[in-house]
Amino acid sequence: MTLLHTETGGRGQLIEGKAIAEQIHANTADRVATLARRGIQPRLVFVRVGEDPASRVYVGMKEKTSKRLGLASETIVVSESTTEAELVDLILKLNEDSNVHGILVQAPLPKHIRETCVYASVKPAKDVDGFHPINVGKLMLGDPTGFVPCTPGGIHELLIRSGVRLSGAEVVVLGRGNIVGKPISAILVQKDKRANATVTLCHSGTRGLAAHCRRADVLIAAMGVPRFVTADMVKPGAVVVDVGVNRVPDPGSKTGTKLVGDVEFEELLPVVSMITPNPGGVGPMTIAMLMQNTVRAAEMATA
Amino acid sequence: MTLLHTETGGRGQLIEGKAIAEQIHANTADRVATLARRGIQPRLVFVRVGEDPASRVYVGMKEKTSKRLGLASETIVVSESTTEAELVDLILKLNEDSNVHGILVQAPLPKHIRETCVYASVKPAKDVDGFHPINVGKLMLGDPTGFVPCTPGGIHELLIRSGVRLSGAEVVVLGRGNIVGKPISAILVQKDKRANATVTLCHSGTRGLAAHCRRADVLIAAMGVPRFVTADMVKPGAVVVDVGVNRVPDPGSKTGTKLVGDVEFEELLPVVSMITPNPGGVGPMTIAMLMQNTVRAAEMATA
Repeated sequence: MTLLHTETGGRGQLIEGKAIAEQIHANTADRVATLARRGIQPRLVFVRVGEDPASRVYVGMKEKTSKRLGLASETIVVSESTTEAELVDLILKLNEDSNVHGILVQAPLPKHIRETCVYASVKPAKDVDGFHPINVGKLMLGDPTGFVPCTPGGIHELLIRSGVRLSGAEVVVLGRGNIVGKPISAILVQKDKRANATVTLCHSGTRGLAAHCRRADVLIAAMGVPRFVTADMVKPGAVVVDVGVNRVPDPGSKTGTKLVGDVEFEELLPVVSMITPNPGGVGPMTIAMLMQNTVRAAEMATA
Repeated sequence: MTLLHTETGGRGQLIEGKAIAEQIHANTADRVATLARRGIQPRLVFVRVGEDPASRVYVGMKEKTSKRLGLASETIVVSESTTEAELVDLILKLNEDSNVHGILVQAPLPKHIRETCVYASVKPAKDVDGFHPINVGKLMLGDPTGFVPCTPGGIHELLIRSGVRLSGAEVVVLGRGNIVGKPISAILVQKDKRANATVTLCHSGTRGLAAHCRRADVLIAAMGVPRFVTADMVKPGAVVVDVGVNRVPDPGSKTGTKLVGDVEFEELLPVVSMITPNPGGVGPMTIAMLMQNTVRAAEMATA
């Protein structure tokens, strides 16, 4: 972590997502090497539907990291007009292919395809994204045999490895999405020495949201509203995790847009004790957990 | 609901679990009659391991209600020394039996049997208890195709049918058990006009628990500590649901023990706006939801 006293006059430390992700990658690469000695290479297949620009970027980054760590990876691109049944058929074939250890269907999917059906068609043992209902259920039940979804799993590791005390902490989560808000709440509330926090899950229906935020020892912003969390909403000394990835207009830039998070980073920095940069905080951790899940899937499939 | 002004001087209303359960039973009986016209009788099989006295009572009550509503039911009792593998084999046979629509394995199980393994062996479409991880996952994801566990499902119905406004309400849940605390939190936080509450899940690791309780518009006590919630922990006008069933010493009684809830009922009554009696609150609703789940399982299996 970088002390920012001198630069900012405040006391906020950066939670170095990139550096922590590299620690996890190092462990993953070791496990890949161990599998290689048995002639096994973990294989991750990405399924991308259509040419959504953000999906192309995300899958590209994940593929690049796979290759760097020695995993085999492959992207299957199907057209925007693919039917739900065709997509499910493709997944069922990948389920049956014993050379494939992990399957990731990149969201978002076209409107005519139900994400719940697609995620539920991935074999749970290859569901390295952790979106199959059986893996979601295991997460809620505290059963460690399932796959933890990558972004909440990454946030958890980020907090643990940054030395944040979670047991007994007041955690406020903003946003009740199935990909971040609900699962991170489920993780942090478990009776486990790595968790054991008191969690309040806030959302668009919450009254007095700012007051909830001000109670938080750890505030996790995952509602997808650009720069929603301002300095007056944060308790001095709190830890803030910014999960948001929002594209907003930026007339000064080449593309006319830029990416911003769910928090007013510059404003919060002097108030908080720790905060994730964005980009460079949660994002790299999501990829690190995906790689870790894939290697674990390969280990389990070949045990 | 019964107004208690005159009797107590307070303003607490009783949430009449028994009466509301009968409303649900009436609907269930109608659905049983509809199935009967097609020659179908919903069949629920209880599996009880050993002779735990509380389990005998619970299964007996559930069987009696099944018969009253026109369901076929049967209890298979296996000995305390049954192995996990033997119990799972029995369940797999019931899974295959197309005459069986619902399977309920009564908790608690002997220490040498892992409950998670047993619950995961019940076919999800016959899991009328809602404990299979895939049904737990669907609950968390807001997917209505699964079975909702009976006690939290019953609490939800009780609140809705008592006219409690849940949208925007501050709900505090005490206890993070897999059977009540976690699933009722998952239900009440959904983006749904029957839910949409802000939920804080408190437990043995929570600091400042009384202060959380005092914030609650709806307080759900499910931690299994006799008479834990006292009047000073409740906001005037709050709605209180007492889920606890605790056996405590009672030298004056024949058995030497009696059952008490997790709240100090008499003390809370003048402070709250509504409160569940205990017994007669949540308990009858749990059975009502079990019957409803079983009829739904039969409807789905024969659709």
